[in-house]
Amino acid sequence: MKEHYFDDLKIGDRFRSEPLNVTEKEVVEFALKFDPQMFHLNYKAAERTLFKGLIASGWHTAALTMRLFVQTLNFAEGAIGLGVDELRWPNAVRPGDVLAVETEILDLRPSRSKPGYGIIRLRNVTTKQHGEIVQTMLASAMVPRRVDARDNKTTDHKTTD
Amino acid sequence: MKEHYFDDLKIGDRFRSEPLNVTEKEVVEFALKFDPQMFHLNYKAAERTLFKGLIASGWHTAALTMRLFVQTLNFAEGAIGLGVDELRWPNAVRPGDVLAVETEILDLRPSRSKPGYGIIRLRNVTTKQHGEIVQTMLASAMVPRRVDARDNKTTDHKTTD
Repeated sequence: MKEHYFDDLKIGDRFRSEPLNVTEKEVVEFALKFDPQMFHLNYKAAERTLFKGLIASGWHTAALTMRLFVQTLNFAEGAIGLGVDELRWPNAVRPGDVLAVETEILDLRPSRSKPGYGIIRLRNVTTKQHGEIVQTMLASAMVPRRVDARDNKTTDHKTTD
Repeated sequence: MKEHYFDDLKIGDRFRSEPLNVTEKEVVEFALKFDPQMFHLNYKAAERTLFKGLIASGWHTAALTMRLFVQTLNFAEGAIGLGVDELRWPNAVRPGDVLAVETEILDLRPSRSKPGYGIIRLRNVTTKQHGEIVQTMLASAMVPRRVDARDNKTTDHKTTD
């Protein structure tokens, strides 16, 4: 997978992850550790809820989205999450669903406080097999710049931190 | 732990979770599955990053916050997450930290589309041992009403869905 730096990206760039299968075992394991509610834990109990069956925790979907994002963008030295807005789960994820994440770069600016880094603003949309949207979010992350861009490059991006 | 329904809550109510210890093993396990970046995976590699040591994924902190929230509020029939805004991680979580979550009820309104449910708006603030804030978020969730409140109760809450 190609490594990315801040300086490789342009506003409007889009990336699509590989597909990822969600298993019942993983849904239940995540719920036992992090979201022990009946519609995430047990098929029988989940059938009696609004969802009429087992669904993944929204936080499980968010964590799987992070995995697909990290694997797809593959930032050199990593991406440091600064914050997330408008995190929504419009449709449920169920065991057997196949997720994919589309990332769109919305904004790019060099960091003022850390010259070796840039701040990216992005939208991640997580879909399942027939294109149904299961999660949307806006996020900001700090990612490294290429060494030759760190000290002297001027850009036409916004420069206010 | 006392079970809660929508009708038990008032705007301004606050709840504080039990403390929860974060271990190095859990930090690394979460990162391997969901956020495989060097500052979450390996002590040695993490020492060479901005963080000067291993830190938990922000999504791990979010998932642990959900666990503490679910255990503390203990909604009868569960809380269905609708969305999250302004999710921020102002300070890092490190192995050995002890987390706790404070929940404040910001708004309450009956659901118009599902009469058996109400919508709560809340703020969750996650702190570590000396009160340092490691995560803040605003969230909306749908939670069940008491049976005797479902059909005929009038309230002075907002009723627009």
